[in-house]
Amino acid sequence: MQSGLVVKKIKQNDNVLFFFNDSKKWLMKVSRKQQFHTHVGIIDHKKVIGKEYGSAIKTNKGKIIYLFEPTIHDYVMKSQRSTQIVYPKDLGYIAARTGLQSGQKIIEIGTGSGSLTTFLASIVKPRGHVYTYDVDENFMAIARKNIEKAGMSKYVTMEKLDIKSAKKMPQKDADMIVVDLGDPWTVVPQARKMLKGSGYFVAICPTMNQLENLAVALWENDFFDMECTEQIVRTIEAREGKTRHSFRGIGHTTYVAFARKVTTPKDARKKMHTEVVDVSEEEALEDEGLSPLKK
Amino acid sequence: MQSGLVVKKIKQNDNVLFFFNDSKKWLMKVSRKQQFHTHVGIIDHKKVIGKEYGSAIKTNKGKIIYLFEPTIHDYVMKSQRSTQIVYPKDLGYIAARTGLQSGQKIIEIGTGSGSLTTFLASIVKPRGHVYTYDVDENFMAIARKNIEKAGMSKYVTMEKLDIKSAKKMPQKDADMIVVDLGDPWTVVPQARKMLKGSGYFVAICPTMNQLENLAVALWENDFFDMECTEQIVRTIEAREGKTRHSFRGIGHTTYVAFARKVTTPKDARKKMHTEVVDVSEEEALEDEGLSPLKK
Amino acid sequence: MQSGLVVKKIKQNDNVLFFFNDSKKWLMKVSRKQQFHTHVGIIDHKKVIGKEYGSAIKTNKGKIIYLFEPTIHDYVMKSQRSTQIVYPKDLGYIAARTGLQSGQKIIEIGTGSGSLTTFLASIVKPRGHVYTYDVDENFMAIARKNIEKAGMSKYVTMEKLDIKSAKKMPQKDADMIVVDLGDPWTVVPQARKMLKGSGYFVAICPTMNQLENLAVALWENDFFDMECTEQIVRTIEAREGKTRHSFRGIGHTTYVAFARKVTTPKDARKKMHTEVVDVSEEEALEDEGLSPLKK
Amino acid sequence: MQSGLVVKKIKQNDNVLFFFNDSKKWLMKVSRKQQFHTHVGIIDHKKVIGKEYGSAIKTNKGKIIYLFEPTIHDYVMKSQRSTQIVYPKDLGYIAARTGLQSGQKIIEIGTGSGSLTTFLASIVKPRGHVYTYDVDENFMAIARKNIEKAGMSKYVTMEKLDIKSAKKMPQKDADMIVVDLGDPWTVVPQARKMLKGSGYFVAICPTMNQLENLAVALWENDFFDMECTEQIVRTIEAREGKTRHSFRGIGHTTYVAFARKVTTPKDARKKMHTEVVDVSEEEALEDEGLSPLKK
Repeated sequence: MQSGLVVKKIKQNDNVLFFFNDSKKWLMKVSRKQQFHTHVGIIDHKKVIGKEYGSAIKTNKGKIIYLFEPTIHDYVMKSQRSTQIVYPKDLGYIAARTGLQSGQKIIEIGTGSGSLTTFLASIVKPRGHVYTYDVDENFMAIARKNIEKAGMSKYVTMEKLDIKSAKKMPQKDADMIVVDLGDPWTVVPQARKMLKGSGYFVAICPTMNQLENLAVALWENDFFDMECTEQIVRTIEAREGKTRHSFRGIGHTTYVAFARKVTTPKDARKKMHTEVVDVSEEEALEDEGLSPLKK
Repeated sequence: MQSGLVVKKIKQNDNVLFFFNDSKKWLMKVSRKQQFHTHVGIIDHKKVIGKEYGSAIKTNKGKIIYLFEPTIHDYVMKSQRSTQIVYPKDLGYIAARTGLQSGQKIIEIGTGSGSLTTFLASIVKPRGHVYTYDVDENFMAIARKNIEKAGMSKYVTMEKLDIKSAKKMPQKDADMIVVDLGDPWTVVPQARKMLKGSGYFVAICPTMNQLENLAVALWENDFFDMECTEQIVRTIEAREGKTRHSFRGIGHTTYVAFARKVTTPKDARKKMHTEVVDVSEEEALEDEGLSPLKK
Repeated sequence: MQSGLVVKKIKQNDNVLFFFNDSKKWLMKVSRKQQFHTHVGIIDHKKVIGKEYGSAIKTNKGKIIYLFEPTIHDYVMKSQRSTQIVYPKDLGYIAARTGLQSGQKIIEIGTGSGSLTTFLASIVKPRGHVYTYDVDENFMAIARKNIEKAGMSKYVTMEKLDIKSAKKMPQKDADMIVVDLGDPWTVVPQARKMLKGSGYFVAICPTMNQLENLAVALWENDFFDMECTEQIVRTIEAREGKTRHSFRGIGHTTYVAFARKVTTPKDARKKMHTEVVDVSEEEALEDEGLSPLKK
Repeated sequence: MQSGLVVKKIKQNDNVLFFFNDSKKWLMKVSRKQQFHTHVGIIDHKKVIGKEYGSAIKTNKGKIIYLFEPTIHDYVMKSQRSTQIVYPKDLGYIAARTGLQSGQKIIEIGTGSGSLTTFLASIVKPRGHVYTYDVDENFMAIARKNIEKAGMSKYVTMEKLDIKSAKKMPQKDADMIVVDLGDPWTVVPQARKMLKGSGYFVAICPTMNQLENLAVALWENDFFDMECTEQIVRTIEAREGKTRHSFRGIGHTTYVAFARKVTTPKDARKKMHTEVVDVSEEEALEDEGLSPLKK
């Protein structure tokens, strides 16, 4: 321990990430009277209380367990799963690609397990907010617990609402809308209504077919700067004289689609264009971004 | 435009991203008296003022330009470069992997062009803060301008200081320390002093040799949960009946190393271990995370 | 030069790869009276004659040019292109995945520029053969020249024939059939007729939609062991103390589909299955490979 | 079955790939009196004899097994392993990158399990040949069996010989030399002696450090056109309306290094260069390929 540091000690009811190794780690609330049984031995919670985060303890089998302060990454990875979660490699690129930042208003359509909700809230807080909508109450109950556990409830409003059939949109002027549905193209017009001008539409699309259907809908609903991506993270084992990529492969999780809302309708843009006479119609269409095909 | 929206109009001195297509876009401050000359025609700034973000205008050559509100992503990509910048794919994974969130205290060693600084500040603001150190005043001047332009100056403290030779560390109790130096392993002991227990050490390492040297230093300075990664983002062209990956390849930018600070020193951990008699020394060392080799 | 080696000297009319660096290299026939002008100087052919392969000469500007003996890789990369060629990364995986070997009988539908034809012939020769079909005489003329230049004409039979509408298949009992058409699914029944039992069907498919359509057709035409892949080759710059991946990215070329011909028709296989009573219909279908979905 | 086809029937002692699905398949010699027990039921060999390749049979549990004719790919993947094998993705790129073809003379240093030997032989046969050297008799015994099983013994000469310490090189004038040793850089001078001018040196290098050490040795021993690569194959699940990459990730196997033998020694090349006066020494060095750093 460094002298002068304000050391954060673990207290009763604090969350702790018990870390044995990268594939064996447990996130739990510390409770004086509990013991936690693992294959590497028993962790006695009362030994944990009073320790600082980052310290190591021993199980009754003599194995070392590290007491890490859980991060949002840990909460996301350890969230209870009703559906497939959105993984850090994808979460991170969504944040960096859209310029997600503290203070923004975000709308999520399809709460799922709440992992994406938790991540978004952790960044936009304390003055920003995430509004999230789902239709499945069972999923919502699980998501609520996950968001609560990560301490993000205050920054999240969860509502049971079918955006597809909603008469009136519950929000407007959002900085970003993230859609995690099987058929994201069905809510593009609704998303458009809730977005501010030049705001970002983002969709979690596990299949190529979703990207394709979505691209058509985005184009028809006056979105532009469309980009579809996949994120791959590879791990490297850095060791003296033996550095190489990991033998473990990292498989597919999802593709992600991005687009920005344009407020001048396509017809008006076409009209702008046709006033000009010295370019061939077709060429101009492509050139001026009236073609959906990004070059 | 949707009725009821609080529409954000572009005013004199606002920053605007003039977007023609993905490879032709310009970020600039709007000034009533200026004209901007591009190969797709002249953009007259006074036509831009009063428009809402997300709308389209026409150049004198009849080409359509979209007026997007710049995001942190746009500021990062359009920052003036003194050195190689850290790219969104890498920024995003750093955020997601470490659980970067609003409110945190971050230290950056090696300010470079300030792109990473800008990104970190945009997330930790308004109550968090980024402290950044460099030794090159020319770089610092450029970084300062980039950070200023993105509106992040308030959340960033920049100081000329050589952390390697500093007698006293300028900060302590940081949630994360990010190092962007050619020899990141030289500041591991100093970084350790400024980090809170279980806090994250992150390093931008363009070469495998840096990862390798760093892994040794991290292990010797009581860091754990070490991971080295590379992030790859591939774009997909989603078009009806013709969906495929982009022909454009995306090349290498940097690898990234991650580790968490452990407060119980290695010696103490070894001692914990040796009290146990029923496991062979060697096995136990590896098992209990006393070996640097992650499995 | 090593003593005792039978040194191969370059003679009049031999092909030589003039290699300056990886992006500047030229493949040409040496002719005593020619001079070749490049931006790095003039190469005088008569200086080349009598040199051994692997030696270096000097241009009149004092630049060094290496005289390499062209390999099939060089012929493929330097082939005249009427259409997109198939790249070495994809050629190689086709060979390794299907067990392509000397002596086989191969059928190619869609000759294109003849690069794939050349590669296939170089491996199956001298006793194997490639039969290749196309409908475009202009493409065929270019392909013929490319195949001739690489010295593979003897092992290739090229015919103008529209396999889709052909009354009678021109060949049978092939070890492998490779299809390089925009709509490869249209020739699956024809390909089947020309393939031996358990022989390989391979298709060059630049888009995901082609893979999807093809998968349906292959399943319906009694193919099995279907696999769709994409091949990525990344280059690494290995240098003392500075080893890293190349900044050059390598983009998309094509996906490739593989499947093996099954001779017992689907109906007969289903019947086999239904004689068994102790497994639920659905489970069994999937289990026994009567479902196209590979697990 | 197509009428008119010369159908290949399975006979006693033929090898058959019993294929249930991609992860459950067995390669074995058919013997009238044998039964093969799998978790999907018993395969009775005598039922297999007389069937044509590509047909399907039923186990006693009613599961369908396909009878495929084994390809070199199947022999490689099912070879008995004493050491790590070289995988198809890497084998294929080696073939395509070097222009491996029927008729060539290949030398392999480090026979290992013989999987690479088998692959090379299957392509260079019938007139080409593979000479392979190892020092471990146990490995060699296993490799011999693998090569024999794949029917390649006739095209392979295996010898126990330590190339590092050999007084005299056992071969010369090879088209390609492939090295699969832990320290491939130690045999570069020897490999050079056995290679023809402009012939290919290839090394299987699982770590970055091997690539780095090798690059230095290749440069010092007058090799050029150096390239280090890694091959990645990703599988795609093509299904109607649900096409996406596979969730299975494919991890690291090995990197591969390539270079071509230059017969004009470095000193002579330097001298060529220094006769020229109008270029700065340093620039010219890099330009003319006298620097090992590929651009």
